[in-house]
Amino acid sequence: MPSPKNIEVAVVGVGLVGAEFVAQLLSYNAKSASSLAKLSLVSLSSSKRTIAFPEPAPPSYDWKAALAASSTPFSVSSLLDTLVDRNPKDKTIIVVDNTASEDIARSYPQFLKAGINVVTPNKKAFSGDLSLSVDIAKSAEAGGSRYYNEATVGAGLPVVGPLRDLVATGDEVTKIEGVFSGTLSYIFNNYSPATPSSNPSTFASIVTIAREKGYTEPHPGDDLSGTDVARKLTILSRLVPSLFDKLDRGYASVATSSLIPEPLQSIDTGDEFVRRLPEFDAEFEKMRKEAEGNGEVIRYVGVIDVAAGKIEAKLERYSSTHPFAASLSGADNIVLFHTKRYADRPLIVQGAGAGAAVTAMGVLSDVLRFV
Amino acid sequence: MPSPKNIEVAVVGVGLVGAEFVAQLLSYNAKSASSLAKLSLVSLSSSKRTIAFPEPAPPSYDWKAALAASSTPFSVSSLLDTLVDRNPKDKTIIVVDNTASEDIARSYPQFLKAGINVVTPNKKAFSGDLSLSVDIAKSAEAGGSRYYNEATVGAGLPVVGPLRDLVATGDEVTKIEGVFSGTLSYIFNNYSPATPSSNPSTFASIVTIAREKGYTEPHPGDDLSGTDVARKLTILSRLVPSLFDKLDRGYASVATSSLIPEPLQSIDTGDEFVRRLPEFDAEFEKMRKEAEGNGEVIRYVGVIDVAAGKIEAKLERYSSTHPFAASLSGADNIVLFHTKRYADRPLIVQGAGAGAAVTAMGVLSDVLRFV
Ligand SMILES: NC(=O)c1ccc[n+]([C@@H]2O[C@H](COP(=O)([O-])OP(=O)(O)OC[C@H]3O[C@@H](n4cnc5c(N)ncnc54)[C@H](OP(=O)(O)O)[C@@H]3O)[C@@H](O)[C@H]2O)c1
Ligand SMILES: NC(=O)c1ccc[n+]([C@@H]2O[C@H](COP(=O)([O-])OP(=O)(O)OC[C@H]3O[C@@H](n4cnc5c(N)ncnc54)[C@H](OP(=O)(O)O)[C@@H]3O)[C@@H](O)[C@H]2O)c1
Repeated sequence: MPSPKNIEVAVVGVGLVGAEFVAQLLSYNAKSASSLAKLSLVSLSSSKRTIAFPEPAPPSYDWKAALAASSTPFSVSSLLDTLVDRNPKDKTIIVVDNTASEDIARSYPQFLKAGINVVTPNKKAFSGDLSLSVDIAKSAEAGGSRYYNEATVGAGLPVVGPLRDLVATGDEVTKIEGVFSGTLSYIFNNYSPATPSSNPSTFASIVTIAREKGYTEPHPGDDLSGTDVARKLTILSRLVPSLFDKLDRGYASVATSSLIPEPLQSIDTGDEFVRRLPEFDAEFEKMRKEAEGNGEVIRYVGVIDVAAGKIEAKLERYSSTHPFAASLSGADNIVLFHTKRYADRPLIVQGAGAGAAVTAMGVLSDVLRFV
Repeated sequence: MPSPKNIEVAVVGVGLVGAEFVAQLLSYNAKSASSLAKLSLVSLSSSKRTIAFPEPAPPSYDWKAALAASSTPFSVSSLLDTLVDRNPKDKTIIVVDNTASEDIARSYPQFLKAGINVVTPNKKAFSGDLSLSVDIAKSAEAGGSRYYNEATVGAGLPVVGPLRDLVATGDEVTKIEGVFSGTLSYIFNNYSPATPSSNPSTFASIVTIAREKGYTEPHPGDDLSGTDVARKLTILSRLVPSLFDKLDRGYASVATSSLIPEPLQSIDTGDEFVRRLPEFDAEFEKMRKEAEGNGEVIRYVGVIDVAAGKIEAKLERYSSTHPFAASLSGADNIVLFHTKRYADRPLIVQGAGAGAAVTAMGVLSDVLRFV
């Protein structure tokens, strides 16, 4: 029996997603003793500290305590040096970036050029300036390394992988449309349900409840701005060959309609933001009523129209029988891929698109591609 | 720049799916000249003939003519010998089985033991006797080889891969339910629509139209028996650890309700079958009416209830707001994964689940896992 392939994993970022990722990885090893591959943790790092593992960590290892007790500061350059010393050309080494850091994102090309693979739920590298995306692709080619980012869109839902497969196997994507923000999904599923409520809640009250439940960022403006949706659209667009170099400045080049009322645009705190939001309830109510009168709902969607070369994050109306109305609930994401092969009816993926467990699962699934 | 990885592919079966697979593979190579991998065709075989490719085939190569002109007979044992001579332990060799042959399915263990990987849309190996599935798993372990069968369920839809990922990353599947037959989807979406028709068609007339459109097998009884659904349920069940060894005799162990009226069970020809089917319209009409009176539709579904250990292919009633009613149309498949992580609302995948282009795409996506 051949010995299992040994894959070395260096984890940067051990917050909500990172900690869950480490837990899933350790239990993968525990369960898969006799399988094709073993995932060896090489190091764990937070923004301040790092710990290395000269020996494989046992499943029960208290890495949190060890990391907290570490006196070794973390830096990208020392991680790179350490991993290069481990001979990435002779084996599989993966950096898993579980941060939201722009700095870490900018370092991917160095790792990839050295033959070190990258897996991440961090949207920054793939949704910013085109030059970084180009650099990443070229560096991977030069280094014979690979990078995966399934969890950047829809968390653990199969979205990025299936899109890559459609493209790689020669399908032609004509349109991608979806509800890509769990927060905005929750808000509009409740504010504008497929079956109208006789006693509807106000927009501000729904945003406030969503915030209390932890569905929004501490400042709900960070969700209502549409920026997160624009980032996800950038990530998907760059996987469609004809759109690869369309968005020069990444998410900033996406036509994005912000839901933040003009007068609230410069409000710094989430508390004041939700306090003042009711002033604009009438505006939202007008849109909702108009849609309802037409048998429609309103949803905040992302649309990539490939032929027209249009990439938009916006509020849109949909018939109450459309999948965005009829099938969507909770804080679910939904993505429709319209392609040459899925021409009559799209390929649809739907489900929870946020949360540490499903996000970590998306990250680990990408790691398991190297098995 | 490292040279691209060379993956050797031997194709068995070049019918509807196989021919499309070869076309997609050749155009993948043409487009991906500078990429990480090249897929080299090693041989093509039908049930009678085989051709070998000492040199890589160019994209425009008329392999159909070459195969038709070949005088070399095909046999599994000679293919195995040829591939073993190519040193499967030193490189990646894949047998792609695009047949529906039971014999080819039974040969997977020999290939896998020799270190040759297997990719297939052929359901036979994974939906029959448990002993073959066990042999396949053990042989792959012994040979350090892998096997993938995404296209056996839902064709090109991401179903098998996501289920493997859920399980591998430690999620717990509680229930899988879906409409797994494109034919039965078409029949019941039309026979029992979410919005009832004032002038409904009879069951027999819908089956007849489906047959004329080529949606059914030549003998519609082959679809109405539920066997194909039972096979797909077996394939999925064997990916859920606690159910792996539940179905001893594979699809034959699945509790399957046949839709073939008892008196028509021994009718050999499709023509006579559809001629006599109207005799049973009243029975189907009764079920449809009962459901409709309750605001429900009828659908032929597959359900894997993990906790209860129940695996059933059956006709079931669903509220007209259920995804099987509200979102399903045409001949689409839909699959709902209920898991510990996707507890509140399932992970849903939907879209066309048959057709040569999407099936070949599913097969090629599996091949690309080796890149
Ligand atoms: N949570 C979700 O549902 C979800 C869904 C999809 C994608 N994501 C993405 O997943 C990533 C992680 O999210 P999260 O919720 O786990 O965030 P989090 O809880 O804030 O954790 C972030 C982690 O990254 C570390 N970090 C930050 N900057 C760093 C730097 N420059 N160098 C090294 N480490 C650094 C932090 O270290 P300190 O503790 O020292 O600050 C912390 O361990 C983000 O990119 C997020 O967008 C999350
Ligand atoms: N079509 C779909 O939509 C779809 C969807 C999902 C899965 N699938 C599966 O995909 C597979 C192929 O389907 P298809 O529609 O392409 O079938 P097909 O058109 O009937 O083609 C079958 C091919 O397999 C060859 N073959 C049969 N027995 C063989 C044997 N013992 N040794 C070598 N070659 C053999 C045939 O050769 P000859 O020409 O010499 O007979 C033919 O080239 C089946 O397992 C099917 O269930 C199909």
